[in-house]
Amino acid sequence: MTPAETARPAGRLWGLGVGPGDPELLTLKALRLLRAAAVVAYPTLEGGASFARSIVAAHLAPGQRELAIRVPMTTAREPAQRAYDAAAAELAEHLAAGRDVAVLCEGDPFFYGSFMYLYGRLAGRFPVEVVPGVSSLTACAAALGQPLAARNDTLAVLPAPLPDAVLRARLAGAEAAAIVKLGRHYPRIRALLEAEGLTPHARYVERATLPEQRLVPLAEAGAVAAPYFSMILIHRRGEAWRWPHD
Amino acid sequence: MTPAETARPAGRLWGLGVGPGDPELLTLKALRLLRAAAVVAYPTLEGGASFARSIVAAHLAPGQRELAIRVPMTTAREPAQRAYDAAAAELAEHLAAGRDVAVLCEGDPFFYGSFMYLYGRLAGRFPVEVVPGVSSLTACAAALGQPLAARNDTLAVLPAPLPDAVLRARLAGAEAAAIVKLGRHYPRIRALLEAEGLTPHARYVERATLPEQRLVPLAEAGAVAAPYFSMILIHRRGEAWRWPHD
Repeated sequence: MTPAETARPAGRLWGLGVGPGDPELLTLKALRLLRAAAVVAYPTLEGGASFARSIVAAHLAPGQRELAIRVPMTTAREPAQRAYDAAAAELAEHLAAGRDVAVLCEGDPFFYGSFMYLYGRLAGRFPVEVVPGVSSLTACAAALGQPLAARNDTLAVLPAPLPDAVLRARLAGAEAAAIVKLGRHYPRIRALLEAEGLTPHARYVERATLPEQRLVPLAEAGAVAAPYFSMILIHRRGEAWRWPHD
Repeated sequence: MTPAETARPAGRLWGLGVGPGDPELLTLKALRLLRAAAVVAYPTLEGGASFARSIVAAHLAPGQRELAIRVPMTTAREPAQRAYDAAAAELAEHLAAGRDVAVLCEGDPFFYGSFMYLYGRLAGRFPVEVVPGVSSLTACAAALGQPLAARNDTLAVLPAPLPDAVLRARLAGAEAAAIVKLGRHYPRIRALLEAEGLTPHARYVERATLPEQRLVPLAEAGAVAAPYFSMILIHRRGEAWRWPHD
């Protein structure tokens, strides 16, 4: 720690899961800590609007400092490292000055979230608490009216960027599966599921819990592109879950 | 529908995810609907105390009717069928009489929850909404301070009652895994993870987010028994998630 960091009690860092999109899916705890934070930070893609901020916008107060974390749209290592190094340094200044900082995280902070990069840089130096949120995974299942996993189902969560061979192997043994991070990989995933005979068991969900939410069987979802906030849910047993212990 | 069901607008059935245990992890939406419900139903094991009810106890009003759903402690089909048939019939009476019914669900209603059995029996006859909640899966990761899944990790969620061969096959290809429904299967799972060399990567979580929460490396968790509300989280990469794009 620098002398400045030891001069007063450090601020606390809160990673707040703010849920999948519907502002009402915020937890009471996330709301309490959000209101208590002197600084509210959130990711933005290259300086664009922040989805996480939009979810809690109604609760932000004029006196709170806001800090946009510009996440570079790249899979290259160096620019991402630099962006998180810079963001962590800025958060550390506030924390060292005794200011509590809330970092807003879409869905849940530790379910494929970028919060982990800030956590990894700051958890050793300042008190950190992670507040779990409603993840897109269960939000999509609720929107579809279809259990995510039941009884002794295995559930596989699979990021779409993985190679076809890996996806095929993981899909083979799972009763239930969720394919996340679709984006530009969507046409390939769609073809793969068709080849595996899984299309009849697959449903496509876009922007779950938001007014523009879209729910369709995969066969009707179109073949072109999918936004980042979309997911495919697969359940091999269809509606057998309606009856217990079958 | 019976004539009674058509005589007035039917009540609405809400499956409310109430989160993993900490009452503050209730969502604003679940709280609003809970307060609006004329009837509040919740599962109890053979008539014992209801964990789901305990989570929201502070918000229940004297004027609300409470309805305990006695879930039989058995894996046999017939007694379970009968219990859910009886509970659905009782809920249907309230719904047909125009009363809104909230069913409390620990964690998330569609993540290995018993709500699906009521949903399957009532969704065709009455308006139903499922409100997703914070699941034990992300709550355990938050409590551990360890991302559940990151980047392009595959995540396998595996119920402990599955045979060893199935568990071994599903664990082999997953960077991250969660083993749920431990209970009496815990000693077998512990031995299996040891044999697979996974003990150093496994952590045991009991009653996450509650005051009596327990978090230990699996190696220190003891070998005897585990309560129903426990989970083992495995991540092969250890703390490599601290740095993005490695």
